Amino acid sequence: MSRLDLGRVAVIGVGLIGGSFALALKAAKACGEVVGVGRDPRNMRTALELGVIDRIAKDPAEAASDAQLIVIATPMAQFEATFAAIASPLARNAIITDVGSTKRDAIRAARKALGAKISQYVPAHPIAGAERSGAAAANANLFRDRRVVLTPLAENSASDVDIVTAAWQSCGARVARMQPEAHDAVLGAVSHFPHVLAYALVHEFAMRDNAAELFGFAGGGFKDFTRIASSHPEMWRDICVVNREAIVAELDRYAAKLDSVRSLLAAGDGPALERLFAEAKSARDQWIGAKRTDAA
Amino acid sequence: MSRLDLGRVAVIGVGLIGGSFALALKAAKACGEVVGVGRDPRNMRTALELGVIDRIAKDPAEAASDAQLIVIATPMAQFEATFAAIASPLARNAIITDVGSTKRDAIRAARKALGAKISQYVPAHPIAGAERSGAAAANANLFRDRRVVLTPLAENSASDVDIVTAAWQSCGARVARMQPEAHDAVLGAVSHFPHVLAYALVHEFAMRDNAAELFGFAGGGFKDFTRIASSHPEMWRDICVVNREAIVAELDRYAAKLDSVRSLLAAGDGPALERLFAEAKSARDQWIGAKRTDAA
Repeated sequence: MSRLDLGRVAVIGVGLIGGSFALALKAAKACGEVVGVGRDPRNMRTALELGVIDRIAKDPAEAASDAQLIVIATPMAQFEATFAAIASPLARNAIITDVGSTKRDAIRAARKALGAKISQYVPAHPIAGAERSGAAAANANLFRDRRVVLTPLAENSASDVDIVTAAWQSCGARVARMQPEAHDAVLGAVSHFPHVLAYALVHEFAMRDNAAELFGFAGGGFKDFTRIASSHPEMWRDICVVNREAIVAELDRYAAKLDSVRSLLAAGDGPALERLFAEAKSARDQWIGAKRTDAA
Repeated sequence: MSRLDLGRVAVIGVGLIGGSFALALKAAKACGEVVGVGRDPRNMRTALELGVIDRIAKDPAEAASDAQLIVIATPMAQFEATFAAIASPLARNAIITDVGSTKRDAIRAARKALGAKISQYVPAHPIAGAERSGAAAANANLFRDRRVVLTPLAENSASDVDIVTAAWQSCGARVARMQPEAHDAVLGAVSHFPHVLAYALVHEFAMRDNAAELFGFAGGGFKDFTRIASSHPEMWRDICVVNREAIVAELDRYAAKLDSVRSLLAAGDGPALERLFAEAKSARDQWIGAKRTDAA
């Protein structure tokens, strides 16, 4: 295989994901200079000091003007304005990609802002993260053995899709392809919805009169269950708003499930509860086992 | 402080918690011989081989007959039969304690089976655990910096309560006292209820036609959120049945919370969602910070 050389890379939004992508590409020697741009000057200085980026651009247009690969890694509410800002300075052979957690809305924003240049946008979503955020949390191994979903457009060239695939593979990720609708439904279920559940539970307890006592006796189970409630509120606001249809559908199905569990509890039906718990445990243990095999 | 010497300890149910308590007492040199008894001969052999216990008794009565401290660490459905089995052989100065996750039901079972000997039973609940179970998972540090709640009875002597307190402190635990009702309500909220939520979510996804795809794209957030769904189904069946009143009350409050979140989602109310997420994150981050300070 010939060596991957992505040339100059522009990272728009140098947070945990954008920053980690930059570090991983650098570690793989897959890119040239990395130019970064972002809203928070302090975060940008940190990114520069830590070597996450090599240079700070003054705005997305400047960052995009001489880059071969442009990665949009801002909160999703800024996607449309970002696409609009880079549409005109975009070089003819440059590729735009993103790391947005929902794909239908990212594509809608891109179509609106990019017009005929939509063919240069290859939508992507790395399934990785942490509850920490910002360039200081970035690390080159964040995507190792993680899945990245591409939802290519009919307008994309095969070679552009291959380059984005190779870029993610050079970070150690396993790349899959899906339709945008399927991506949003699946991720809405297994990622976005649990975030809503975790935020809601912590908020419920935090608002009670005895909140201090409740948190005082919460242990390791609660800590892990709610880890994702320490995620970036603005990022998750955007994801929840753009993918609300899928999340509301999950909420309704889960409410029905909880209602049936409530009946078992109210009836004190031990055998049925044990069966449900055992089936859930078995499904999860099998999944964890498969994950380990994948990663090995 | 004089050295704690608990004498011979009987552990009835040598699983993760009972086994870890035995190992921690041994590591602290706070006890003499540890006698174990349990239903599963293979697990008992493992406990003996790993030095979790020193001897296997044939039944709870034999284990209790010459022990100074008897720890009941079976699933809670067996508590009443266990109290009944040890009531008669119990030495006059022996202390019974337990590790049951709900206290009202444990006390009810003890009163019924022990009669006048109820004064010898000091109810306790260590807030620690892991999704693994069995003697092989036991470790001497499981209780380090964890909270243990005692819910002493009016009949207990102060010195018996002090001995059980000292036993847990020798394992590195921080001991608190509560009323049994308060304990069950608080733990029902922050421990039992999240287990029900996690089991229900995994079960919901596992039962769908596209379960393989859902699990295939589930990431680290889902993994942590559902860690407690790999817990011991029989143990959690018992906890849920005995504490169902508190858990159903939590379910109803949470359902109302989710309903209000659903309204925000359906309305696409980004600012209100961000506020809720930010308040939850802030409460959780503060809690995690306080936990770290406690442990330091």
